[in-house]
Amino acid sequence: MTPATGKISLVGLGPGSLADLTGRARAAIAEADTVIGYVTYIRLIKDLLDGKEVIKKAMTEELDRAIEAYERARAGRKVAIISSGDAGVYGMAGPTFEVLFQAGWTPGSGVEVNIVPGASAINSCASLVGAPLTHDFCAISLSDLLTPWPTIARRLDAAACADFVVALYNPKSGRRTRQIEEAQRIFLRHRAADTPVAVVKAAFRPKQDIQFTTLAKMREAEISMMTTVLIGNSNTYVRDGLMITPRGYANKYEAESGFAAARDGEKAGVSLSTGLTGWLAALHAAHAGGRTPAELARTYRLPEDYVAAVLSEPWAAEADAAADDAE
Amino acid sequence: MTPATGKISLVGLGPGSLADLTGRARAAIAEADTVIGYVTYIRLIKDLLDGKEVIKKAMTEELDRAIEAYERARAGRKVAIISSGDAGVYGMAGPTFEVLFQAGWTPGSGVEVNIVPGASAINSCASLVGAPLTHDFCAISLSDLLTPWPTIARRLDAAACADFVVALYNPKSGRRTRQIEEAQRIFLRHRAADTPVAVVKAAFRPKQDIQFTTLAKMREAEISMMTTVLIGNSNTYVRDGLMITPRGYANKYEAESGFAAARDGEKAGVSLSTGLTGWLAALHAAHAGGRTPAELARTYRLPEDYVAAVLSEPWAAEADAAADDAE
Repeated sequence: MTPATGKISLVGLGPGSLADLTGRARAAIAEADTVIGYVTYIRLIKDLLDGKEVIKKAMTEELDRAIEAYERARAGRKVAIISSGDAGVYGMAGPTFEVLFQAGWTPGSGVEVNIVPGASAINSCASLVGAPLTHDFCAISLSDLLTPWPTIARRLDAAACADFVVALYNPKSGRRTRQIEEAQRIFLRHRAADTPVAVVKAAFRPKQDIQFTTLAKMREAEISMMTTVLIGNSNTYVRDGLMITPRGYANKYEAESGFAAARDGEKAGVSLSTGLTGWLAALHAAHAGGRTPAELARTYRLPEDYVAAVLSEPWAAEADAAADDAE
Repeated sequence: MTPATGKISLVGLGPGSLADLTGRARAAIAEADTVIGYVTYIRLIKDLLDGKEVIKKAMTEELDRAIEAYERARAGRKVAIISSGDAGVYGMAGPTFEVLFQAGWTPGSGVEVNIVPGASAINSCASLVGAPLTHDFCAISLSDLLTPWPTIARRLDAAACADFVVALYNPKSGRRTRQIEEAQRIFLRHRAADTPVAVVKAAFRPKQDIQFTTLAKMREAEISMMTTVLIGNSNTYVRDGLMITPRGYANKYEAESGFAAARDGEKAGVSLSTGLTGWLAALHAAHAGGRTPAELARTYRLPEDYVAAVLSEPWAAEADAAADDAE
């Protein structure tokens, strides 16, 4: 195997102020001969660039940047490609690997490539508005330049329907204004009009701005490419200027428990009956009592073939219940 | 307004080694009189704890930790509550705010609360396997202790169907082994058996381990509470030991374009025809040509009421196309 002669580090800066860099990111920038990135990000870390070659690029030159990085690394140099947030999240990591593969690079070919993770916009923006990400969440980019709109629309619909907290990346640009309106329309098919929405601009940077609004009113907020839009799930609330998603689904207990009556010794709001084992017990009991898979699928809002597959398997309630005991 | 007398910082450590701390996280720990966290995380930052009160807690004592933090902060102390990853993602931020609200805290009441973001497990694990998060992604926890299984199952099904890259948090514990099997079953309803899956254990810590597998074979991998499971979307591939999700949907172009034939001047693989404006044009043209909303909904795999709502609006193709030009 050829010894490594050069190195490319894909460095996530986090939200962008120097205080948000990790030690690993600082070290990768410090050891780099060449630092490549958008003008904005280069400016954010300008105090760390003394004596280095600096290559500033515009938004449309991403693949060029990857090629320049590879050329230098093959000549034995150490190159840091910087991204805001996390380099892997809609960032340079994907396009860079694609360019490297096309150029014949392999991990053993003499150029080391590593990725330095950072807090993505969803994390940084969430930290400024409270605790919206306590429950399952999605990130969806509204940029339809490389992604067909039906794909984006399906994801919006699926995320809204399945009650994910959602962060919209690239929500709107000067010319691309209707995507956010379509996103709102799709969400309103599933979520209440008063669902909390936070619009966070330039998190942890000088122009930081936070707007709280609702799903019904979000079009009145100032939304741009500099913002991330956080949409709460059906349990998210705003109190004292903080957007909170509670961890438990206590207030959903009745609706979700379906045929599973609480058993002796269960605490209210704790989902022993509606966790997997409890749900399996309830499902098999209801089926034995004459409910069809189609009816049960409607009750639990799950696909009928999934419910039927689960019901087709032998059911040993005692064993599963015992296994759950110690958790 | 009462001046702040104490402070609670909810600090995300990132994956866990000291090199992964941000400057902001280090500063929050440095200024704290008291540091509270799980035994494991306290151990990770033990070199930063000289002279501080340290409160180690077990997994089940989360609310106790929030209460102890508040008691100390009300007495004027500075408290850091540490979490691995991001404090907001399935972390202490949510439960802490809930406890504080119950205790009568408000943002103006003399105890300042702030959150220091960090890279979550999805980011750290992704950075070690390649670039799986180049496209839209979800995080789903398989812990059904506080969440009803039907809610989790609906999210798994929605994420699998809408082609999100998915990170499964808390995939399996010693006693909770069937949830990951159900997740696999639900994913196999929508994704190919050879969909790439990465199982990452203890990212950036001494016991770090990475396994590549597929959706069909993932049950053979060693999965525990220490691991995060990354499932690729339909375009994700593994090459030379790297899991890559390409940015574009070039290979989906034909399938997604539906009735929208490429127009003169379009580049192949670029979704001008399938971005929102192009899709609207195609949709209206097909409707004018006699296709019903129901047929078009099936073609694009979108809800019929959404397609009907879009079609019910006046359509000015020229204006929208002009607006798209400059992007």
